[in-house]
Amino acid sequence: MSDFPELKNDLFLRALKGETVTRPPVWMMRQAGRYLPEYMELRKKYTFFERVETPELAAEITIQPIDIVGPDAAILFSDILVIPQAMDFKVTMNPGEGPRLPKPITTPEQALALTVPDVEDRLHYIIEAVTLTRKELNGRVPLIGFAGAPWTIFCYLIEGRGSKDFSLAKRFYYEHPEAAKHVLSVITETTIRYLQAKIKAGSQAIQVFDSWSGLLSPEDFNEIAFPYLKKISESITEVPVILFAKGSWYALEGLMQRTNASALSVDWTISPEYARQATGNNITLQGNFDPSRLLTPIPELKRMVTRMIDRFGKDKYIVNLGHGILPHIPVAHAKAFVEAVKEYESK
Amino acid sequence: MSDFPELKNDLFLRALKGETVTRPPVWMMRQAGRYLPEYMELRKKYTFFERVETPELAAEITIQPIDIVGPDAAILFSDILVIPQAMDFKVTMNPGEGPRLPKPITTPEQALALTVPDVEDRLHYIIEAVTLTRKELNGRVPLIGFAGAPWTIFCYLIEGRGSKDFSLAKRFYYEHPEAAKHVLSVITETTIRYLQAKIKAGSQAIQVFDSWSGLLSPEDFNEIAFPYLKKISESITEVPVILFAKGSWYALEGLMQRTNASALSVDWTISPEYARQATGNNITLQGNFDPSRLLTPIPELKRMVTRMIDRFGKDKYIVNLGHGILPHIPVAHAKAFVEAVKEYESK
Repeated sequence: MSDFPELKNDLFLRALKGETVTRPPVWMMRQAGRYLPEYMELRKKYTFFERVETPELAAEITIQPIDIVGPDAAILFSDILVIPQAMDFKVTMNPGEGPRLPKPITTPEQALALTVPDVEDRLHYIIEAVTLTRKELNGRVPLIGFAGAPWTIFCYLIEGRGSKDFSLAKRFYYEHPEAAKHVLSVITETTIRYLQAKIKAGSQAIQVFDSWSGLLSPEDFNEIAFPYLKKISESITEVPVILFAKGSWYALEGLMQRTNASALSVDWTISPEYARQATGNNITLQGNFDPSRLLTPIPELKRMVTRMIDRFGKDKYIVNLGHGILPHIPVAHAKAFVEAVKEYESK
Repeated sequence: MSDFPELKNDLFLRALKGETVTRPPVWMMRQAGRYLPEYMELRKKYTFFERVETPELAAEITIQPIDIVGPDAAILFSDILVIPQAMDFKVTMNPGEGPRLPKPITTPEQALALTVPDVEDRLHYIIEAVTLTRKELNGRVPLIGFAGAPWTIFCYLIEGRGSKDFSLAKRFYYEHPEAAKHVLSVITETTIRYLQAKIKAGSQAIQVFDSWSGLLSPEDFNEIAFPYLKKISESITEVPVILFAKGSWYALEGLMQRTNASALSVDWTISPEYARQATGNNITLQGNFDPSRLLTPIPELKRMVTRMIDRFGKDKYIVNLGHGILPHIPVAHAKAFVEAVKEYESK
């Protein structure tokens, strides 16, 4: 990858290594998205899949927040459901209804028939988007690649859509554990190949999102979610890995001790003090501003960001939200969030 | 209330007092509901509001699970949105779309204009349903009355419906804290009068459901949810109060130490060990079987219930789910859940 431009802002990578910094780096989950008017312009012209599957568009959307909001890392514009697509599931994304898999898995036979696809072939457009984005970023900030965690992808494969409780996915696991484990293993292997291809193409860090892990009891998390997160994290040795098991406050210690993650992302129900205590201050933490708190009037918002950094501590820390940015956040508030972090070093 | 039949099964009330028992009592949140074919029959004939507002129907629905499934407590069939109704908000409950408030609060002026209604007049049918149910239960098991917590009701008053993040409700609080506090205070006072009327009418215990408290950071919980839960719990001295702050694992210690709750209900993301440790084994705990785990094949389901009791301990404990029972749970599985508890004493 020696032909990529030299990295000018390495704050994010240094925080992932646990190095001492003058201020923590900052980025926002879903920072390339619907709160930006520039994104909404592209949304009028191109469908969701055109935006994801056209490397030039994905690169442009990825870089928009870097220009407009100024975070210290970029994250490739894409979607976690590209993995089901690579596995031959049709995915629809119609306005106003959220993602749908019209033909989800309903029988153990269907589950056992799944095989690992040729990811580099099926998702070549994302691999190309990574390299193009990395070049176009021109070394301004590092580029993160991401994937959904196996349990979260499994939920979509079984339910075919989002759910309040994912009880169908859980039932499938409880009633057909061997078939379910096969599905989870195929997702895991597909994801590993996908992430390795993204790294080869230029991703400088990886984040794995287990958006639905918080719906599992600690015992079910340990059985259904954890082993696959561990396997993915251990298969990636070239770049740092950030694991985000949303809602699984009880899993922080295990994720630190028993995976090779470089950082753990935490949601806003976890206090900085609890997160530091559960991990013995031995790992970089990322988070955890309540996405709704970006609606707070700006002066108070900035004071809250400062307090959050004080509580996590400036080192081994990446400022982020506790989940993705919401569509109705004013851009000025997103900017204020990032500015508050950049102003931190002067305090 | 001396004219009510004598209570024959006081296991639930004894567990709330922390007395030593041969086995813990058991009931299930939403046990009067859609998983019962007998309930579905009534649902075909009467609208939701006919069922809630006709004391004979509410009593019949409340007693159905006692006959069919056999728990150690009954909970009055009703809805948390009767409080908005009493406050003059129209509530619709159309099949397939969930509850809606067509005219939610949108301005601080509307919020500040709210006043505490004459609850006993507005909700007289519930008061009558309590007394009728208590009589018809004929002392078989005690009768629980319930209400939604002020933060959860506030969410509905502002959003007009359920939400993934309740960011509008949060924004309203962040932007108009005084108006929001007025709304929360009016809800609180209305709820206190409502619960006191229910107790006078025959409720033998109270549960307060903060279904959405887990969407708040610990700081926001302490400011927006906790004070009102505390006020409600302290205004009820005649019967035991169970507080359920779903998702707020971080709040267990404070809820125990700083309210006069007799018990805390916990969801399934909280391990029994954590719950006991956070509360120093000083309060009765209730919960916390994952509602989806009722889909587990019956022999394993019963083993899991036994393990759960072993982990919580049989005393100062009420077996329950970690949230309401799901509509697609087979009745045989609900029965197995209750049976496993009743069989516990012989082990």
